[in-house]
Amino acid sequence: MTTRGRRSGGGDTRTEILDVARGCFAAKGYDGTSVRGIAREAGVDPALVHHYFDGKSGLFAEVIGVPAGIEGQIAAAVAGPPEGAGERIVRTFLRVWDSPEGRARFQAMVGAVASHEEAAHLLRDFVSRSVLTSLAHIFGDDDVLPELTVAAVGAQLVGMGLLRYVVEVPPMVEADPEEIVAVLAPPIQRLLVP
Amino acid sequence: MTTRGRRSGGGDTRTEILDVARGCFAAKGYDGTSVRGIAREAGVDPALVHHYFDGKSGLFAEVIGVPAGIEGQIAAAVAGPPEGAGERIVRTFLRVWDSPEGRARFQAMVGAVASHEEAAHLLRDFVSRSVLTSLAHIFGDDDVLPELTVAAVGAQLVGMGLLRYVVEVPPMVEADPEEIVAVLAPPIQRLLVP
Repeated sequence: MTTRGRRSGGGDTRTEILDVARGCFAAKGYDGTSVRGIAREAGVDPALVHHYFDGKSGLFAEVIGVPAGIEGQIAAAVAGPPEGAGERIVRTFLRVWDSPEGRARFQAMVGAVASHEEAAHLLRDFVSRSVLTSLAHIFGDDDVLPELTVAAVGAQLVGMGLLRYVVEVPPMVEADPEEIVAVLAPPIQRLLVP
Repeated sequence: MTTRGRRSGGGDTRTEILDVARGCFAAKGYDGTSVRGIAREAGVDPALVHHYFDGKSGLFAEVIGVPAGIEGQIAAAVAGPPEGAGERIVRTFLRVWDSPEGRARFQAMVGAVASHEEAAHLLRDFVSRSVLTSLAHIFGDDDVLPELTVAAVGAQLVGMGLLRYVVEVPPMVEADPEEIVAVLAPPIQRLLVP
């Protein structure tokens, strides 16, 4: 007889689910991974995975280090009248990352991406699937923005994050969020609505 | 009697000069560090430092991993008629980093900056002193651009580099340099000449 089997929770279960999820996402990508499969491999009930994490996308966000709920925030920023899209997107980016915890996460994410091919792969998957797809369809499904335009919007945001949270270039660190919105929203707006 | 004293060169001397330089730049910053001081601490003749590296700025570039001669390239991109500045700046950035060696350097630089406070400090020093100062004076010494505007230009470039060389988001990787110039030069141009 053995004590192995489905676990009912406890301190290390959450960590173990995360470890298993990291391996699954890296090996099979986002689409090829299921909560059921992760639960089976971790030896827990799928309900426990949902208890700890907000479904597959929440689990994935946790694995790559982006804040939970980020996909909803992106969707909310993209929705609304086209003329304010640039401002809403820059404000959302700052709201997500501009706290001490957000800064630390951004730093960790950049470090992981730069040093681990697996992390770069996972982040690429997230950015392509979630961020770029949302932005591309900002004006509806019939009027899709070119992929490179969308990637250029993403580049402006992550570049600002890199200088503000990682390299810490003084003018970018000292600016308050609304000053950054004033400088960065117009170029993003013009890319979205030329 | 001892064999210690000034060395005349050899395999490890270059590496040792770099190690000493790394420590000096980190401890005293760019302005507080001299070739003479590095040479003294490394136990070599200052001429040997000049022989291996292109003066203080070349040595500093080598320490932080940016290609030698980058300051001259930035100066050349910034010089010339204002109306083409955005295009020249994006083309220069791509020429510096878009080779296999450049990509590897960019990756290493991002990794170092994300994981070592010292590297972030050195890169911040380089970006502030060299890149941002050149850009701020793009239209002469009397017409200086706001620091935050200049930092936003830098953010667009490093963000593009991060997505093209590190995260490797497909539309940014697959675009040829002139496609990137077409998308990224206009926003940069409008920041420089509103």
